[in-house]
Amino acid sequence: MIIIMEPSATQEQIKTVVNALHNKGFKTVLNHGDVMTVIAAIGDKRLIEPHSFQSYEGVRSVKLIQEPYKLASREGKSEDTVIEFSNGVRIGGLEKPVMMVGPCSVEKDLDGLLQVAAAAKEMGCQFLRGGAFKPRTSPYDFQGLEEKALEYLAIAREKTGLLVVTELMDTLDLDLVCNYADVIQIGARNMQNFKLLKAVGKCNKPIILKRGGAATIREFLLAAEHIMYHGNDKVILCERGIMGVDNTATRNTLDIAAIPVIKKYSHLPIIVDPSHGTGRRYLIEPMAKAGLIVGAHGVMMEVHHDPENASSDGAQSLSIPVFKDVAKRLNKLIGRIDYDNKHLIDKA
Amino acid sequence: MIIIMEPSATQEQIKTVVNALHNKGFKTVLNHGDVMTVIAAIGDKRLIEPHSFQSYEGVRSVKLIQEPYKLASREGKSEDTVIEFSNGVRIGGLEKPVMMVGPCSVEKDLDGLLQVAAAAKEMGCQFLRGGAFKPRTSPYDFQGLEEKALEYLAIAREKTGLLVVTELMDTLDLDLVCNYADVIQIGARNMQNFKLLKAVGKCNKPIILKRGGAATIREFLLAAEHIMYHGNDKVILCERGIMGVDNTATRNTLDIAAIPVIKKYSHLPIIVDPSHGTGRRYLIEPMAKAGLIVGAHGVMMEVHHDPENASSDGAQSLSIPVFKDVAKRLNKLIGRIDYDNKHLIDKA
Amino acid sequence: MIIIMEPSATQEQIKTVVNALHNKGFKTVLNHGDVMTVIAAIGDKRLIEPHSFQSYEGVRSVKLIQEPYKLASREGKSEDTVIEFSNGVRIGGLEKPVMMVGPCSVEKDLDGLLQVAAAAKEMGCQFLRGGAFKPRTSPYDFQGLEEKALEYLAIAREKTGLLVVTELMDTLDLDLVCNYADVIQIGARNMQNFKLLKAVGKCNKPIILKRGGAATIREFLLAAEHIMYHGNDKVILCERGIMGVDNTATRNTLDIAAIPVIKKYSHLPIIVDPSHGTGRRYLIEPMAKAGLIVGAHGVMMEVHHDPENASSDGAQSLSIPVFKDVAKRLNKLIGRIDYDNKHLIDKA
Amino acid sequence: MIIIMEPSATQEQIKTVVNALHNKGFKTVLNHGDVMTVIAAIGDKRLIEPHSFQSYEGVRSVKLIQEPYKLASREGKSEDTVIEFSNGVRIGGLEKPVMMVGPCSVEKDLDGLLQVAAAAKEMGCQFLRGGAFKPRTSPYDFQGLEEKALEYLAIAREKTGLLVVTELMDTLDLDLVCNYADVIQIGARNMQNFKLLKAVGKCNKPIILKRGGAATIREFLLAAEHIMYHGNDKVILCERGIMGVDNTATRNTLDIAAIPVIKKYSHLPIIVDPSHGTGRRYLIEPMAKAGLIVGAHGVMMEVHHDPENASSDGAQSLSIPVFKDVAKRLNKLIGRIDYDNKHLIDKA
Repeated sequence: MIIIMEPSATQEQIKTVVNALHNKGFKTVLNHGDVMTVIAAIGDKRLIEPHSFQSYEGVRSVKLIQEPYKLASREGKSEDTVIEFSNGVRIGGLEKPVMMVGPCSVEKDLDGLLQVAAAAKEMGCQFLRGGAFKPRTSPYDFQGLEEKALEYLAIAREKTGLLVVTELMDTLDLDLVCNYADVIQIGARNMQNFKLLKAVGKCNKPIILKRGGAATIREFLLAAEHIMYHGNDKVILCERGIMGVDNTATRNTLDIAAIPVIKKYSHLPIIVDPSHGTGRRYLIEPMAKAGLIVGAHGVMMEVHHDPENASSDGAQSLSIPVFKDVAKRLNKLIGRIDYDNKHLIDKA
Repeated sequence: MIIIMEPSATQEQIKTVVNALHNKGFKTVLNHGDVMTVIAAIGDKRLIEPHSFQSYEGVRSVKLIQEPYKLASREGKSEDTVIEFSNGVRIGGLEKPVMMVGPCSVEKDLDGLLQVAAAAKEMGCQFLRGGAFKPRTSPYDFQGLEEKALEYLAIAREKTGLLVVTELMDTLDLDLVCNYADVIQIGARNMQNFKLLKAVGKCNKPIILKRGGAATIREFLLAAEHIMYHGNDKVILCERGIMGVDNTATRNTLDIAAIPVIKKYSHLPIIVDPSHGTGRRYLIEPMAKAGLIVGAHGVMMEVHHDPENASSDGAQSLSIPVFKDVAKRLNKLIGRIDYDNKHLIDKA
Repeated sequence: MIIIMEPSATQEQIKTVVNALHNKGFKTVLNHGDVMTVIAAIGDKRLIEPHSFQSYEGVRSVKLIQEPYKLASREGKSEDTVIEFSNGVRIGGLEKPVMMVGPCSVEKDLDGLLQVAAAAKEMGCQFLRGGAFKPRTSPYDFQGLEEKALEYLAIAREKTGLLVVTELMDTLDLDLVCNYADVIQIGARNMQNFKLLKAVGKCNKPIILKRGGAATIREFLLAAEHIMYHGNDKVILCERGIMGVDNTATRNTLDIAAIPVIKKYSHLPIIVDPSHGTGRRYLIEPMAKAGLIVGAHGVMMEVHHDPENASSDGAQSLSIPVFKDVAKRLNKLIGRIDYDNKHLIDKA
Repeated sequence: MIIIMEPSATQEQIKTVVNALHNKGFKTVLNHGDVMTVIAAIGDKRLIEPHSFQSYEGVRSVKLIQEPYKLASREGKSEDTVIEFSNGVRIGGLEKPVMMVGPCSVEKDLDGLLQVAAAAKEMGCQFLRGGAFKPRTSPYDFQGLEEKALEYLAIAREKTGLLVVTELMDTLDLDLVCNYADVIQIGARNMQNFKLLKAVGKCNKPIILKRGGAATIREFLLAAEHIMYHGNDKVILCERGIMGVDNTATRNTLDIAAIPVIKKYSHLPIIVDPSHGTGRRYLIEPMAKAGLIVGAHGVMMEVHHDPENASSDGAQSLSIPVFKDVAKRLNKLIGRIDYDNKHLIDKA
């Protein structure tokens, strides 16, 4: 149940509603928006007559939310969330889909990174992605350049104006990463690292939350709910492939249908990562298009200045010339997708 | 190994090559095309020097095929297979994607079927689909009208000129179904019903082979190989969803990436079924678009004159008015997809 | 809903109940047992007051069955089904677990088969298994010796008194297989070949139904229901491994928990196949033990006289000497398992 | 590649080998055992002639390890790892399997916890488990009592002498948890939280590492390798169920075969958790037995003084009286399992 207070509601009135809920055995979460306060009430709905709260002073409306996620749910907030950055870039709703590109890992060769960043800028991308801390299945694989990588990303931002996306793996590194990143990424393997979700819930940067490889849509939205519950509602979801029945032809199964499903059940922006989603270079372009045509708010792709010698994930990275070609065609598709996109949202 | 004979090769020359292969312990399959004969040789390549066969009289070329499927493999036949029907409709290669629509099951109400068929014709579809024999998880569910359904489909074909697609479930019904159908469908649960594959391999109708819900691409193409091995090379593959990690949000996970993967490894046409692939009416349109934009040669969609009262699968069927709307937008997308399509094939 | 008639109920009384059910819109299935008739009524329970049928003449009791499977359900029949063979062997309930062993495929070497059969007999096994028709992923793999294999199995039965288990793949071969087999096996890939289920439902041989690699327990029991619905209630279920997350360490994931789950929900016997369930020779013994200790009514294991040169599945077959060793330890475990077994059933 | 130095090898000799490896482009990890030092060398084996290192002074032997995990691999260390606690309890190898029981979450009711602990002690268990920090899919579910729970566990240890197992979710809580726990648990959802693995790799407590629900055996052993690589070789693996095809009948699919598979490939102890592995109370006993009979070194079970009112996972918890019954039968099985267990290890 969500109780939306009037903009004019007083602290006293809010407190009265909260106390009444507590007396009924409900737990409450308060969301103080710019304009009004929303009270999420969690508990056994059978114990109350929800609409009785309608009559409390200061209450604008009461909504019953069936889904276990409340703040992330479209039932609770029907308008799309649009996240705006200081340079005017916007993600979500009916905004033009964005492109986030860069190497899997930031490597020692700063010049290579700058070449990728320049190409990204030239092709109209808005974000540069690159890993400083790398989650690696084996301890013997490259683990990332850590702070040095963050410095390189900052240099590339300086030179191009691109916004920087990078992954946070541990609560201990939160301040460090916040100092450098414009957007903090939570990786698929940390989707249910609840302490990390709580930590980024308390910071004020936009978060890209990647779907775990075995996570249902419900678990995915509940992970977003953890972040929102702790105060950060700037969550961008990212579909990056799930476990399918064939891990030979592709690395993961990119669940394209998850995009319209999530747009139906949540107001949060959702982007698609065809690099991790397929693990195959030749599938990046078609799967980026598939994601865009069903309504993704953006595409994240791995681009490397020398994929054959990349420290990680070379097989799913585009070279710079191929990237430019692909980006040209994606831009063309983005240019003409508006109508479909609006239509899909209308139908959801 | 594939040995391609010259168009001018004599029966004698072919026999000499075949005998030489048998002497080396190889098994052979002969494919007599209109123009030339191709010999597929299966055995342990380490025992021979393949290119020694190049010097036999009547041999045009010798190709080593790494994949376990030979006849279905693009290595063995690089040109796309295009299947042509008597009314001129063509599927595969760079042909315009086709649309196959109709109810999940053909029901008692002939008039309802004719309404769907008329709408399909009006919107430019080429095929009418409908089940006469229904594979149902429970014996207590509707099992299909059997021959009566086939008669109804024939009436609808008569009235509209649409080609008829219907499923065959048992070798015993082969002749009956062949009498009525233009295309025989093998369902996902029968993808590895090898006796059925053999039976349709010996008939001369085009076959739609649906991917099993837990089948890898390799198993899927090997199932097609069973049909081709027994002499029928008119196989149309159909991606219809696999087992994913979430069977609540969607019924299956539609593996859109399978389409470009299959176009890379096989020359056979591949279509997409977003109705079974998602099990949700609101996902049919976006997922049909996703399939088309990555290069599917066609779309199969369930359309019913009264979805709420359908005998089966109503939740994933479009009503006639919604179908018309969706078809309009799909036709628009099909109209402008050619370039991308060609590009994808060029890259594969 | 299941309506159990008195042993003394007349045809007239049965007909009256059936007609009353039809008038309420229910479908009925009659099961004429040796002693009494059971009427399964399928339809919308909300339309009737089930216990009103209690008052019909000839009705002993009325049971509501929640599960979609009725005849296979323990709700409908609480006593375990025990299947007895003409030579006195019994499977199910609290009977001593049986052992079914033999090669994956029956091969040309009759002597090898007879060696395996002799060892099986010596170690106290009751059944000889061997494939005559082989479902093979590739058309280029060994497809089975067909009738020749059936003849060999009959010879081995003649010499040892073992009962013969062999797989049926196509309705066309039903009579042939029935002529030779004591038990007909339906393979995992045919678990939802509904025409085949119907065909064996009409014959009077016991059926081993293998669980499909992606089938839920509900789908598995509904497949058994198809067989029972058509009149054959001698169904032995077989857990043989499902799709898991790791197909490198093992071929399938043997779902040991499925055994006590099925014993809770169904009265049918359930056996375990650790050869297909793991695909690794060294896992056959431990997984056979795991199956037995949770209450399996039998174990099916592949044994070959020369596993390194087997036509199929050598890597998951025991050699004869290793089999004897394993069987000795399994017999020891079977000897002391009774108590646990009874306990599990009591708790179910 | 693993280089095992002689017990008499000097620091100088070790350094010489390490430098030679570095010069060949290899990375090295040193493991200083009580008796001898082992050097793990990671790099491209094609660049060297491994056996050339045999001739260095102080080298006892050189082993090539094919597996990507080195320290966790049985190839590198053939003897089973046995972990000994200060009170003499031992886990691994041929030691008697242990029992770890307790509530999912430690709750406010200290007395309830003490009842469980007393029953555990009475039935011969060695460990008390209980969650202080709870990973919960929803932020609205009970998140654990944190330090209060740790204090309660310490009180229970004081009263019973049981060793305490509890989960660590965040590197920030490492010192706190180390102050209270005898064994630190890493949960399934954190199996690839590499920063956490690194942190516990640097502490000197034994670690229970739970297998992720979608993790292959290789990924599981590589996660253990992360811990060992950072210096802690006291790792106890725990199979707790993976994603299967049926999440209705059971919560997870308990992969019993993983136990003998892991015993073949690794020397680390492996235990089984049938509570999380099935999510059903009635399956705890049979699946505990299945785990033990295939060679598990211990069983972890949830026991609660009032399961119907548990804060979490009540449906998979045993009540105290049922637990006592189950433990009696498990102790009986443990008492007679030695032979089988030894046999399995000999065969591995």
